[in-house]
Amino acid sequence: MPPLVTFTSDFGLTDWFVGVVHGAVHAICPAAHVVDLTHAIPPGDVTCAAFVLEAAAADFPPGTVHLAVVDPGVGTSRLALGVAAHGQHFVGPDNGVLEWALGAAGARVHALDNERWFRQPVSHTFHGRDVFAPVAAHLAQGVALASFGPAVENPVRLRLPAPRAEGGALRGRIAYRDRFGNALTNLTASAIAATFPGVPEPELVVEVLDRTITGIQRSYGDVPIGALVALLGSSGRLEIAEAHGDATKRFGLGIGDVVRVRAR
Amino acid sequence: MPPLVTFTSDFGLTDWFVGVVHGAVHAICPAAHVVDLTHAIPPGDVTCAAFVLEAAAADFPPGTVHLAVVDPGVGTSRLALGVAAHGQHFVGPDNGVLEWALGAAGARVHALDNERWFRQPVSHTFHGRDVFAPVAAHLAQGVALASFGPAVENPVRLRLPAPRAEGGALRGRIAYRDRFGNALTNLTASAIAATFPGVPEPELVVEVLDRTITGIQRSYGDVPIGALVALLGSSGRLEIAEAHGDATKRFGLGIGDVVRVRAR
Amino acid sequence: MPPLVTFTSDFGLTDWFVGVVHGAVHAICPAAHVVDLTHAIPPGDVTCAAFVLEAAAADFPPGTVHLAVVDPGVGTSRLALGVAAHGQHFVGPDNGVLEWALGAAGARVHALDNERWFRQPVSHTFHGRDVFAPVAAHLAQGVALASFGPAVENPVRLRLPAPRAEGGALRGRIAYRDRFGNALTNLTASAIAATFPGVPEPELVVEVLDRTITGIQRSYGDVPIGALVALLGSSGRLEIAEAHGDATKRFGLGIGDVVRVRAR
Repeated sequence: MPPLVTFTSDFGLTDWFVGVVHGAVHAICPAAHVVDLTHAIPPGDVTCAAFVLEAAAADFPPGTVHLAVVDPGVGTSRLALGVAAHGQHFVGPDNGVLEWALGAAGARVHALDNERWFRQPVSHTFHGRDVFAPVAAHLAQGVALASFGPAVENPVRLRLPAPRAEGGALRGRIAYRDRFGNALTNLTASAIAATFPGVPEPELVVEVLDRTITGIQRSYGDVPIGALVALLGSSGRLEIAEAHGDATKRFGLGIGDVVRVRAR
Repeated sequence: MPPLVTFTSDFGLTDWFVGVVHGAVHAICPAAHVVDLTHAIPPGDVTCAAFVLEAAAADFPPGTVHLAVVDPGVGTSRLALGVAAHGQHFVGPDNGVLEWALGAAGARVHALDNERWFRQPVSHTFHGRDVFAPVAAHLAQGVALASFGPAVENPVRLRLPAPRAEGGALRGRIAYRDRFGNALTNLTASAIAATFPGVPEPELVVEVLDRTITGIQRSYGDVPIGALVALLGSSGRLEIAEAHGDATKRFGLGIGDVVRVRAR
Repeated sequence: MPPLVTFTSDFGLTDWFVGVVHGAVHAICPAAHVVDLTHAIPPGDVTCAAFVLEAAAADFPPGTVHLAVVDPGVGTSRLALGVAAHGQHFVGPDNGVLEWALGAAGARVHALDNERWFRQPVSHTFHGRDVFAPVAAHLAQGVALASFGPAVENPVRLRLPAPRAEGGALRGRIAYRDRFGNALTNLTASAIAATFPGVPEPELVVEVLDRTITGIQRSYGDVPIGALVALLGSSGRLEIAEAHGDATKRFGLGIGDVVRVRAR
């Protein structure tokens, strides 16, 4: 069964950087399928890349290796990490991009410092090709995580503001705007259910900016065209959408805007 | 021989949606090669996606599975379809996106309603990942089309205006603008040949807006730089192009504009 | 071991052209992995595509087949070429796009004129699908280069202005702007070392427009944020970058601008 490697970066698709990383994986693990998650992360935006991994990684089978290269500190003394978590492997710089893996119970975190697994010579500016891709490929080939270097006790964490209770409401933030103009929040379905046990979704109210949305719906089609709709999206998070429209543009929703959920 | 699955959507490449669909295919059919046709279909533009499939699908080998997810009705009661046609399989929502397959002689059309083939739990907003990709992967694995659900008698059809004869001319429309600024029409080489039997291509005249183009050429290089050229393009359709330029921008050609072919 | 085929073009990603080329490779060589280098080459910009191949091809394993389709002369009498060089194969039109391969010592260059290897019928406007992809796939399958057609003595060469010594300095030009706003020059690390033997990199000075940059650094992080930095980048060329910024935008650097390296 060909191993599966995903690849997330801020490289864009206009240059050849994504392609040579694919090549660096295939050079070591020729059978792997390399699946691009996205390469449109804004340059250096570690938080955005961490959100993408959190939203997408769980959709892949056990054993998948996730390669994440958003690496503004390349060439400095920042560590390179390999993480075993959620039954998968994660490879990237020690800057918080692997937050979802680092926060998992039982996560094992190792520094990547054994040069025998790297592409030689190692450049100072492109560890995606020379360090991270080769390690991801060796992990996909079955090399044990501990082979790459020593355990790391205190990896860099993102320390994002967590959702919290506030006067009977659950308060979170918009964390991502997708291509369709939907605003994805950091409020998970499970956090909402835990905060409002037994309250059916139509009895919840969502507040964002000066708007109040009554009820959490099942799909975009459940409200009239042009109306704001709140729903639990495909990655298990509360989303604010406009039925057949671009909610973030029309209603001016931006990353960091506060979102409150309360009972009706 | 690894199965071949193509994938067309309006997901764009900035989010992770395309990647997780690839993952959902590989989770079931690890050996498959998934080939992206395009993910730049304008959001919800079923007609555009149907044109892309019609232009591209025939270029793939027999047995290819084509996955098309332009699905503004996701979460409503619209059916999901699998179609066997042209020696290939097609998977997508019942909204006309599979028009080229549905119109084929002998096409077999089945609803996808047997949940045993789906990814569980099935979300209300992302059937690309939860329904269509798994079914495409199972088809690629060799599962019979009838296993997915009952035959469908009246799938939704696009009912596009067909080319027609008009006062000795063949009248069609511009259906697509490509990246090079070429305007692709709905007039096929075979329709032109059938309308003007025995007339050599240089003896035909093409009219679009207030322009008249004399002769249908073999390639872009057959006219001076900057001139409009009419030719039979690589997908077997009449194209209006500018030699080394962008015809749609320079001459203001748009989708839906009428194109007439007549004998000189 | 699945063969590796890279693919570079000016097709963009909005149409289906890239996808059908992948399909044309898989139709002949089902096991191949096709890796996209970039499809964002400006339409018809042969020089840009040649630079991309030169920067990226060496990162791929021996035996890789590189397919490059920037082909403004499609349908004219220009030749199609296959080249063996650098332990790899290269396939593309005879317009200079394969310059890096053509300039290699011992390069073998053959015309592709044996139609038995083509996809039939061969269109006049899409040799990427009908000629180049099938030949690349057959090369990946192990067909010998000489099978495709006769040796070519005088392929079209790019004849770019080469770096040259000028009053004690090494004079070159900016050849490429990448997604991060870094300006890549045509001055290679080895040319700089040969011109200034024994001079350590911190003792070199780089001049571009009216700016003078003292020292060639090892990485982007070696200077204060916002400062211009000169470094030897991941493809072995001198780069002008801004630490955590977009050098080409901020300092107005453009392709063709002169860059001089001299000793302090």
